[in-house]
Amino acid sequence: MVSMDSGALDAARMLAEHRLPGILVTGSDGYPEAVLPAAQVVQFIIPRYVQDDPSLARVLDEPMCAKAISKLRGKTVRDVIPEKFIKIPFARADDTIIELAAVMAQYRSPLIAVLDGKRLLGVVTASRLLEAALRDSSPQG
Amino acid sequence: MVSMDSGALDAARMLAEHRLPGILVTGSDGYPEAVLPAAQVVQFIIPRYVQDDPSLARVLDEPMCAKAISKLRGKTVRDVIPEKFIKIPFARADDTIIELAAVMAQYRSPLIAVLDGKRLLGVVTASRLLEAALRDSSPQG
Repeated sequence: MVSMDSGALDAARMLAEHRLPGILVTGSDGYPEAVLPAAQVVQFIIPRYVQDDPSLARVLDEPMCAKAISKLRGKTVRDVIPEKFIKIPFARADDTIIELAAVMAQYRSPLIAVLDGKRLLGVVTASRLLEAALRDSSPQG
Repeated sequence: MVSMDSGALDAARMLAEHRLPGILVTGSDGYPEAVLPAAQVVQFIIPRYVQDDPSLARVLDEPMCAKAISKLRGKTVRDVIPEKFIKIPFARADDTIIELAAVMAQYRSPLIAVLDGKRLLGVVTASRLLEAALRDSSPQG
């Protein structure tokens, strides 16, 4: 489980190892607090001047990669996470697929948390949600 | 392979079946043309008034789900894709990880295409890129 105070490097490793589009960040009470998208970590490690002009990346050499990753050292998840993904709403276990989809659409989040009361049941990604919606709408059931 | 003229419903099925964060859209020449994120398809099927006020989803019943999915029928990928993901840049096979990351960061895309000359080599997601960067920056190699 990743919290806001977890190491940013550990979070990056978890995203990489499990090939996740994003990771759920929980508070000390186990309650979901935020979402950290993998694309956000990629953006964080790239120097601002390279973001503004990607052609500059061409003149940087490979050791630059280690340097980029080192930007995560000593940083917490809180440092990396974008403001808009903090205090992200979540869905309830008894919500309909449409309710889940509405929350996901509003926040443009790669995933949302699903709670049963105070307990975290799991995480639903956009592709998983489409799967459920397609199955639900199929005449064959 | 998905093109701009492919059915939106087929694209949704492909995203769902392979649990993809997004799908690459190619032209008739096999060249990558755009990216369709799964979250974008979710957003497309949700009525505008529900997007504006997700609490309205609570009062909608389950048949609404079939109705939402039916919004994809008769639509093409071109209809669903957001303007900013059209003509997305791609990386070259000999680009460094930093170059890939810079392109991904600039376009906030969940994936980018990698080309070898005119040939599409594959697709790199944000989590896959982090994996490569972490391995590259490790002192153990």
